[in-house]
Amino acid sequence: MPRRVDHDERRRQITDACRRVVARDGLEAATFQAVAAEAGVSVRLVQYYFGHKHGLLVATHRAVIEGSAARFGGGPPPGEGAGPPSPRAVLRAVLAALLPLDDARRADAVVLAAFHAAALTNEAIEPAELRGAPRALVDVVAAQLVRARGGEAGTGKQQGTDDTARLDAELVLASAAGLTQGILAGHVDDETALAVVDRLLDHLVDPA
Amino acid sequence: MPRRVDHDERRRQITDACRRVVARDGLEAATFQAVAAEAGVSVRLVQYYFGHKHGLLVATHRAVIEGSAARFGGGPPPGEGAGPPSPRAVLRAVLAALLPLDDARRADAVVLAAFHAAALTNEAIEPAELRGAPRALVDVVAAQLVRARGGEAGTGKQQGTDDTARLDAELVLASAAGLTQGILAGHVDDETALAVVDRLLDHLVDPA
Repeated sequence: MPRRVDHDERRRQITDACRRVVARDGLEAATFQAVAAEAGVSVRLVQYYFGHKHGLLVATHRAVIEGSAARFGGGPPPGEGAGPPSPRAVLRAVLAALLPLDDARRADAVVLAAFHAAALTNEAIEPAELRGAPRALVDVVAAQLVRARGGEAGTGKQQGTDDTARLDAELVLASAAGLTQGILAGHVDDETALAVVDRLLDHLVDPA
Repeated sequence: MPRRVDHDERRRQITDACRRVVARDGLEAATFQAVAAEAGVSVRLVQYYFGHKHGLLVATHRAVIEGSAARFGGGPPPGEGAGPPSPRAVLRAVLAALLPLDDARRADAVVLAAFHAAALTNEAIEPAELRGAPRALVDVVAAQLVRARGGEAGTGKQQGTDDTARLDAELVLASAAGLTQGILAGHVDDETALAVVDRLLDHLVDPA
């Protein structure tokens, strides 16, 4: 039986190479030649899988976002002792996972900053179906905030709780994006970023 | 008497043109040819003033940051009725001034996002002497927070007040940066951004 080429694996090998090139040298550096050399494959193979540069960049952007989403798939940290983790612990884990506190996340954040800047002046490097990705996180964070406050007050849901929780969730995600920018630019160190996260959580939920 | 060329004015004309080119077409589009055409001057004149592309980009980056800083020079809004504005009103004005809520600030924010992304993979497009600019704002915001809390509690300064205020000031600036990114990307509309700002101020200072 002839060996089947694993197309997904090959595409992944090439988008991984593109991520490394963009993280190291910027978006303009991601030519077919440079990406093929980084991946250790021929330019023709890159052309075969992606056709044109736009297709390669869209696929790479998708791979970075899916990789980030997969990090959340690990689930919240275990609670201390028995029982489920507190909403505060879940929120802190989400925020910490969003920050570029290790080399892999830093590289991803650099790539996303490059795509963000490019999307402001060029057309559609962002895959249309991923436009909603940051919005899904708002729901995740808002749900944890409602849970945290229901637990605190013991009164269940109130009128306006959801609207307030959504604004607070937007605040959480905006803070994470801004801290990420500050860390990448070297204005904020990791320790300060985590202290700001804890301070934000002090404002949003009970210290307990 | 021969008319003297106003060198500062000429340099400004060229960096303004460069800002427009970068805001519209991205950083790679800012060639001497494109900038000269946008400014309505010769390529030789651009070369005369800036020598090489790096010099032009550094000068343009500086112009955008100085322009943003000048917007804060307008001072806080007048207080309602008589008396100075409340610390909350000052903080809200600072935050609102940081967000890209009109065309000029939007264009500046696009240019800064381009420089931010480029600085992560290229050397020193950021003028070294401006590296501290975002840090100066931390002091401004922290001072207003201390003032707001001194007024609230009527107890004056306490041990730890300054550290806490600085973390909250970092939170304010990170939120503004993240909201700016969300507005530019089209994830957050202006109204939601201002509602998040008010919500943050609710957490940080008395509603009054």
